[in-house]
Amino acid sequence: MRTVYLDNNATTRVDPEVVQAMLPFFRDQFGNPSSTHGFGASVGAAVSKGRRQLQALIGAEFDDEITFTSGGTESDNAAILSALEEMPNRTEIVTSAVEHPAVLTLCAHLEKTRGVKVHRIPVDRHGRLDLDAYRATLTPQVAIVSIMWANNETGTIFPVAQLAEMAKEVGALFHTDAVQAVGKLPMDLKSTAIDMLSLSGHKLHGPKGIGALYVKRGVRFCSLIKGGHQEYDRRAGTENTPSIVGLGMAAELASKFMDDETTRVKSLRDRLENGVLQRIPNTFVTGDTLERLPNTANIAFEYIQGDAIPILLSRVGIACSAGSACSSGCLEPSHVLRAMNMPHGVVRFSFARDNGEEDVDRVLEVMPAIVERLRGVRNSGPDRRSAEDLQCGLGLSGSRTGSRS
Amino acid sequence: MRTVYLDNNATTRVDPEVVQAMLPFFRDQFGNPSSTHGFGASVGAAVSKGRRQLQALIGAEFDDEITFTSGGTESDNAAILSALEEMPNRTEIVTSAVEHPAVLTLCAHLEKTRGVKVHRIPVDRHGRLDLDAYRATLTPQVAIVSIMWANNETGTIFPVAQLAEMAKEVGALFHTDAVQAVGKLPMDLKSTAIDMLSLSGHKLHGPKGIGALYVKRGVRFCSLIKGGHQEYDRRAGTENTPSIVGLGMAAELASKFMDDETTRVKSLRDRLENGVLQRIPNTFVTGDTLERLPNTANIAFEYIQGDAIPILLSRVGIACSAGSACSSGCLEPSHVLRAMNMPHGVVRFSFARDNGEEDVDRVLEVMPAIVERLRGVRNSGPDRRSAEDLQCGLGLSGSRTGSRS
Ligand SMILES: Cc1ncc(COP(=O)(O)O)c(C=O)c1O
Ligand SMILES: Cc1ncc(COP(=O)(O)O)c(C=O)c1O
Repeated sequence: MRTVYLDNNATTRVDPEVVQAMLPFFRDQFGNPSSTHGFGASVGAAVSKGRRQLQALIGAEFDDEITFTSGGTESDNAAILSALEEMPNRTEIVTSAVEHPAVLTLCAHLEKTRGVKVHRIPVDRHGRLDLDAYRATLTPQVAIVSIMWANNETGTIFPVAQLAEMAKEVGALFHTDAVQAVGKLPMDLKSTAIDMLSLSGHKLHGPKGIGALYVKRGVRFCSLIKGGHQEYDRRAGTENTPSIVGLGMAAELASKFMDDETTRVKSLRDRLENGVLQRIPNTFVTGDTLERLPNTANIAFEYIQGDAIPILLSRVGIACSAGSACSSGCLEPSHVLRAMNMPHGVVRFSFARDNGEEDVDRVLEVMPAIVERLRGVRNSGPDRRSAEDLQCGLGLSGSRTGSRS
Repeated sequence: MRTVYLDNNATTRVDPEVVQAMLPFFRDQFGNPSSTHGFGASVGAAVSKGRRQLQALIGAEFDDEITFTSGGTESDNAAILSALEEMPNRTEIVTSAVEHPAVLTLCAHLEKTRGVKVHRIPVDRHGRLDLDAYRATLTPQVAIVSIMWANNETGTIFPVAQLAEMAKEVGALFHTDAVQAVGKLPMDLKSTAIDMLSLSGHKLHGPKGIGALYVKRGVRFCSLIKGGHQEYDRRAGTENTPSIVGLGMAAELASKFMDDETTRVKSLRDRLENGVLQRIPNTFVTGDTLERLPNTANIAFEYIQGDAIPILLSRVGIACSAGSACSSGCLEPSHVLRAMNMPHGVVRFSFARDNGEEDVDRVLEVMPAIVERLRGVRNSGPDRRSAEDLQCGLGLSGSRTGSRS
């Protein structure tokens, strides 16, 4: 069965050049970059190169503004906890209702255990942030604003540069979870008021288990993981050199190909959206269609519930993702869809470098029958079938729960 | 120049079988194991296999007692912070004076910022723990004891099973940093009272940037990194599948070869120690020579200071490590040596699977002249030369500071 991978917002295939770049660091240049001897020194240089490649991609002014972490989640946690530690007199956090769990779960925990006040800015039904509500929460009590650059489900882009300027006026730090934006959108951090930014390697054809936190020079920072003096005392633990080198290479490739890829990926995405909307009635595109990642299609199918479509697509070798709160057999729409007041039956198709027109064609080939089947099952009129019913009917089972990445 | 790598306590070469096992997970089975679709499911199975391989190596009763982390440092931090979070009425920590900075730096921070009382149990000049002092600190105020299984500098093994029983009597949790012990010593955690254990992949021929925390069933745990539901809600962030698979394979290889390797590596180590002691006057082995890792030789050279020997050895292609507080040009002995009341000039040679007799012979060939040179430089009698002088003399420069791993 030919497989079609359209779940690149969950994770991407590692680029072959990235794998090649990493390989020597497992068995040859395997030394500890913090060692004195020759085995460490050349590895230290490779780490520095990775840092500069990432610096170039995000337009940081200095390479020491980049700290390598184990991924987007760690970076998000580190940014928020550092702000609270460094500004003990400020006890409020401003975030949005549609952040990734890496931000929202931490905020809920801080609210419960440390008495931190958390403001969650709502969005409208297109996923756009309520700017008036945002402005109203900004006071000198706010330690940090954490608002994502682009949403992982809808692809909606928030005006982070503007939001950062506003936060600055009340002396709050501004952090952005740019896990979905880095490598997809051009960035020039040095010309913004953004203080901290999170990114993750595996979303841009780099390895899993590596990410970075950008911290603008001058921003005080308290490390989340404490121990040795690695990463300018900002992140302890032996440096993950193969992955740092891999992330560096992924950043370089993203810089190099961004313009061309954006155009190509966007045209694939549009082709899919138009094709689905033309062929299947009662469907529409969700999210902010003006300010949106070029690679993300988030399509609502009326009268269908939960993750029924992705489950059936998976059976014909097509990977995409449902807008449900857990990953299998779950009727509850995700927190993002709920914040947008969206009905069930939303499917995310996310494209990347590896995709071609044949992928779109394959989806368009199978979709109409699948939707018809789901809408028509049991009775002739449109009904709301649950994924659970379908899974049973299709003999699927086994539900690993996990959040939509 | 033939190179000799004897710094395996800092980091090890990744085993070729480990690299082979990892490779498919970069480009083929690259899916997100938390996804519903087929791209994720097979990857989920690989993660489970890695967990079971690690379970077997450390003798855990259940595979869900293993949580994958980004390394030893994260595991240490997570264990200690979880205990404080889960037992808010207990505000003391017991640890030793010779722990890794992953434990000691965190403890110092908690002491300063959260008013936690930290007891640091001293060691004698052989690096052995003061058991009376330990017993005296155990009260119902202690939330967690964190004492390492084996010391990274001297290789000294602490009686952790016994220490854990004692901690249990006062209701304190017992955590052990076993980063240097896992893969080198047989373990059967299910038959001990140890509640939590940290390990790190790159110390046992696995990849960097991956580790694990063992948490015995029944022990309440609060995650350090919050977000999605990965790892049974104990560690958020997209699973680092290639590295989990690699660590699993490294664990399997360690289980398989442990007996033979222990004998072989120990005989290499002993050959080196005996050779140095025979050939070079005023040298002695430090640490507990009875209870000691089979792979670690920590040799004191009287009348020599700091990391002078490793610097000169590095120039002839031999990697080993100095017992100094920072990795280059630093006169201050490490906290471990200070706790043992040791003079300067201590060198750690640490062996592994890759080493052979020719490595030992090479060291024995060059050592006498190096020591003679260092002791004799400038005047005819023994004098205390600093690494700084030597570095200048030898035209070495550039000092990355970092802690000895
Ligand atoms: C917007 C966003 N933030 C954070 C994360 C977390 O990144 P990671 O899984 O690499 O920790 C993800 C993806 O999982 C994401 O899409
Ligand atoms: C005893 C000990 N604990 C913890 C660590 C930290 O492990 P990692 O560097 O993988 O975070 C090390 C090595 O660096 C170690 O030797």
